[in-house]
Amino acid sequence: VKFALTILGSSSALPTSKRFPTAHLLNVNERFFLIDCGEGTQMQLRKLRAGFGKINHIFISHLHGDHVFGIFGILSSFQLLGRKNCLNIYAPEGFRNILEFYKENFAQDQSYEIVHHRLGERGKNLIFEDKIVEVYSFPLKHRQTTLGFLFREKPHDFNFRKEAMAYYKPGIEQIKEIKQGADLVLADGTVIPNAVLTLPPWKTRSYAFCSDTAYDPRIVKHISGVDLLYHEATFSVADENLAAQTMHSSSRQAAQIAKNAGAGKLLIGHFSSRYRDLQVLLNEAREIFPDTEIVEDGNVYEIPKTR
Amino acid sequence: VKFALTILGSSSALPTSKRFPTAHLLNVNERFFLIDCGEGTQMQLRKLRAGFGKINHIFISHLHGDHVFGIFGILSSFQLLGRKNCLNIYAPEGFRNILEFYKENFAQDQSYEIVHHRLGERGKNLIFEDKIVEVYSFPLKHRQTTLGFLFREKPHDFNFRKEAMAYYKPGIEQIKEIKQGADLVLADGTVIPNAVLTLPPWKTRSYAFCSDTAYDPRIVKHISGVDLLYHEATFSVADENLAAQTMHSSSRQAAQIAKNAGAGKLLIGHFSSRYRDLQVLLNEAREIFPDTEIVEDGNVYEIPKTR
Repeated sequence: VKFALTILGSSSALPTSKRFPTAHLLNVNERFFLIDCGEGTQMQLRKLRAGFGKINHIFISHLHGDHVFGIFGILSSFQLLGRKNCLNIYAPEGFRNILEFYKENFAQDQSYEIVHHRLGERGKNLIFEDKIVEVYSFPLKHRQTTLGFLFREKPHDFNFRKEAMAYYKPGIEQIKEIKQGADLVLADGTVIPNAVLTLPPWKTRSYAFCSDTAYDPRIVKHISGVDLLYHEATFSVADENLAAQTMHSSSRQAAQIAKNAGAGKLLIGHFSSRYRDLQVLLNEAREIFPDTEIVEDGNVYEIPKTR
Repeated sequence: VKFALTILGSSSALPTSKRFPTAHLLNVNERFFLIDCGEGTQMQLRKLRAGFGKINHIFISHLHGDHVFGIFGILSSFQLLGRKNCLNIYAPEGFRNILEFYKENFAQDQSYEIVHHRLGERGKNLIFEDKIVEVYSFPLKHRQTTLGFLFREKPHDFNFRKEAMAYYKPGIEQIKEIKQGADLVLADGTVIPNAVLTLPPWKTRSYAFCSDTAYDPRIVKHISGVDLLYHEATFSVADENLAAQTMHSSSRQAAQIAKNAGAGKLLIGHFSSRYRDLQVLLNEAREIFPDTEIVEDGNVYEIPKTR
């Protein structure tokens, strides 16, 4: 069971020769979630062989061009490939204009349905769930309505100890209960503790995506205990006045959020093109939150299964 | 004086891991003309260090997504870079919708003017000229209004033979006339033939861009004698029925146009993603027009100065 994040694009508003605009792909057990869709996302997906055809859910944090201009190409290519599966797009209200423009001008005979799920602007909302994963949106603080996303595995079943299960031979109904953590009561009334029959379940893994946002301590409560946190770090500490003006964050501020949320690991990106040497930003973040990394296009961050 | 074409993107509608959607950049003596603007054009311009900031004229052949989805990112990046120069976009009438959508949703405070020059659908039209170059549009044959473009240097002045000019010392007015090919008449009535004073002017160079189009012999007259011709070759000869259905060309048909136009060199691209081995398409074209090449993203084709 995989839980892996691929960075498709990591630039700020101006792409560079090495960084495409923002797009992330999260693979949770072969369910592929596309998060933001900057220009060139479909080319990055192809180049990285990252499950282009398997995307059924796209999450758009906000409607600045560097987070959404890749949507037209993706929708067109799905069409050209004869896609039939419904495509779900979770995006702020204003995405309606973008979708209407696309449909009117570029999709005369659409082979698949596109459903726009409008994201609430307030509070933490469950916006998607299936058997194994749930996705929440929560408000960020930017120049227009902007949402962060939290992806979290649902609790896993307990794992059977094969030898013990073979020995006690529980019935089908009992097996279901043991999976959920119940003890086994034998016909003679003997209680076999669950721990004899099972290993602890795999820990649920989680990923939170925070881009773009000013420093906002209210984010912390929405992502508390997250395993992997991406938080934008457009500016260096020296330019925190610019960060405030443009409603972005410094690397130090990103690290402060990670620390306060008790995150497992912090990824920073969306760097202003003014910085030639990103080591400064990395050092600033690591002073507060040591397990910080700078993302690069093509990087993959996998969270292993642990008990 | 340079005349060089850079291929920014060469895929057909579906980009591949190695080919971005259509975009070409023509540099005529440091005037940069962008021709079509598929998704990722701005990233290719940066990666290839190809004069991103110097583009003042963009030519859009038609409004299929793979030829125009890069326009949003380019317009936004110009804005972010504080562009002041007017940007001229030569495109079919329908481009109005695209520009309006962009302005309404992504350009609240536009720092530079964008002028949309609407392209006529009929005949060959001079759509741009300055001191050194002229650009014509002409109709192609596709599923929607589609224009080809011809870029041609204006006639160059005669080049002075320095020694002869130093010897005869013509006046300022005489110099102007000699540049245009006139003989020099000395005070005593002696006629010094222009050939004594000058070398022949550099030949005018030209580039024609034909994408996307069904095979259409009417194109030939518009590009007669062109030095460098790009003509789409979406299909192999074996799939000419598909070419006809989708209003594209086979490589053989592209070569036939090049041959009949007396082109100097043919570039083919826009290959359907169904072909793994493009050598077949190249061979088919070379049977009819030997000086054919397959374009690759990043390739540069320079036409040297000759007399």
